[in-house]
Amino acid sequence: MAHYSYSRRVAFCDTDAMGVVHHANYLRYFEEARVDWLRRHGLNETHYPNADVVMAVVKTGVNHYKPAYFDDLLNIQLQVRGEGLKIYFQYAIYRGSENELLAVGETLHVPVNGDLKPVRMQKAMVAQLESEKWIETWPSNS
Amino acid sequence: MAHYSYSRRVAFCDTDAMGVVHHANYLRYFEEARVDWLRRHGLNETHYPNADVVMAVVKTGVNHYKPAYFDDLLNIQLQVRGEGLKIYFQYAIYRGSENELLAVGETLHVPVNGDLKPVRMQKAMVAQLESEKWIETWPSNS
Amino acid sequence: MAHYSYSRRVAFCDTDAMGVVHHANYLRYFEEARVDWLRRHGLNETHYPNADVVMAVVKTGVNHYKPAYFDDLLNIQLQVRGEGLKIYFQYAIYRGSENELLAVGETLHVPVNGDLKPVRMQKAMVAQLESEKWIETWPSNS
Amino acid sequence: MAHYSYSRRVAFCDTDAMGVVHHANYLRYFEEARVDWLRRHGLNETHYPNADVVMAVVKTGVNHYKPAYFDDLLNIQLQVRGEGLKIYFQYAIYRGSENELLAVGETLHVPVNGDLKPVRMQKAMVAQLESEKWIETWPSNS
Repeated sequence: MAHYSYSRRVAFCDTDAMGVVHHANYLRYFEEARVDWLRRHGLNETHYPNADVVMAVVKTGVNHYKPAYFDDLLNIQLQVRGEGLKIYFQYAIYRGSENELLAVGETLHVPVNGDLKPVRMQKAMVAQLESEKWIETWPSNS
Repeated sequence: MAHYSYSRRVAFCDTDAMGVVHHANYLRYFEEARVDWLRRHGLNETHYPNADVVMAVVKTGVNHYKPAYFDDLLNIQLQVRGEGLKIYFQYAIYRGSENELLAVGETLHVPVNGDLKPVRMQKAMVAQLESEKWIETWPSNS
Repeated sequence: MAHYSYSRRVAFCDTDAMGVVHHANYLRYFEEARVDWLRRHGLNETHYPNADVVMAVVKTGVNHYKPAYFDDLLNIQLQVRGEGLKIYFQYAIYRGSENELLAVGETLHVPVNGDLKPVRMQKAMVAQLESEKWIETWPSNS
Repeated sequence: MAHYSYSRRVAFCDTDAMGVVHHANYLRYFEEARVDWLRRHGLNETHYPNADVVMAVVKTGVNHYKPAYFDDLLNIQLQVRGEGLKIYFQYAIYRGSENELLAVGETLHVPVNGDLKPVRMQKAMVAQLESEKWIETWPSNS
């Protein structure tokens, strides 16, 4: 799979009384993958507080197909593209090596400064977004 | 305002380093309002673990318009309707008495039992859903 | 009971796969009670970001006696005293009207400014601490 | 360093409006290290829901020396010993390669089954605890 991917285990505190990962935690998992993507592309220096810019979240969405359980090894893949002044991420969460699709999601961001005012996207981010591949039909099995 | 409404303060631990409520917490606020709605309609006895049924989340979405800050008094309104075997909630989060719209969102649920198998909707829930009003254009200022 | 008290329900997302409130959430409940105590005494204006002061946490401790469950109505009581430049809170969490003791805890704080530098305690806080009663043997049944 | 160690980055959602990791998250970090320790010693099969046993938390404590910030690479070390029917963990959290001590803590556990009844410690756990080294003066710089 060509997509960028980030792995993490399900923590016990992320589960709820139904024995599955509580749905609010998927947004935390997406964020971890997004920040890891920034880091791997040398873009974490463009992120608050290293720079006076953070990617404010203006929209989120998640579709849940199967539950995740304590200690599952999750594989979080993402793709990203610029949408005018905004940045759009898509995510897919798989369980372990079986590549069992658990959830897909999306987040839409606007770069803002420490006073929450929209700012121009940094050049390094613009350059990275131009080099990213985007697959309309991804993930195919969702 | 005719809509069901639930109030809560923003906790300090719900904020992030940008000084605003972290976006993942909106799903927690929606859940609190949803559970409170169940309780006020005598439906909490239909909820796990009181009954062997929980409303599994299959879809969530949030649109963020303005940030929420520490100690803000949030007013969370919701409307709900049945969609076949599913239950669909819409939410709007306002700040304080000014009724400043901060975010709108939605969650889609399927009743499942403790083994996460879909089950028939309970009669009390069906009856409640039939008595609920639904306004297509709500909330009007979003 | 003469002690200051704050009530809240257990949210579903606060439970874990054992069906009980995850232990890390007790520190969040303590914080909610502490902030509510500030508010009721007109001291929330002494708290960041209303003032450039926050009560940084330097020590926490919790003893758990019984588990809390989803939707339990928790009653959180506290007492507080100054300890030199620090502020010391003790907490007791009871379930519902039965006053069943679930946990006791403590947090120790130092007033710091936005740069995390210790600052002098505000006069309003000093005055409040002087008027607080402290019972060494509280809570008696722990 | 001879102690068992686990590493993780500080997530953005773990920070609060003071720009530092909120204190309740330290208990989550301890848990992650504890579960990772179980896994590395082949003991995760002794943990709920793989086995009908979980290590219920009966006591926690944390001392905070320095704040942790977004994206800090944390190094969490621990030592563990049996105390009769209980299991006692001590933790130290360091920042990055500089080994800057941020916090120390402790958790005390009782093995319980799915009904939260205390159960005998599993043989594999007893054997592991007997092979663990314990240093009274650890961590030395706390």
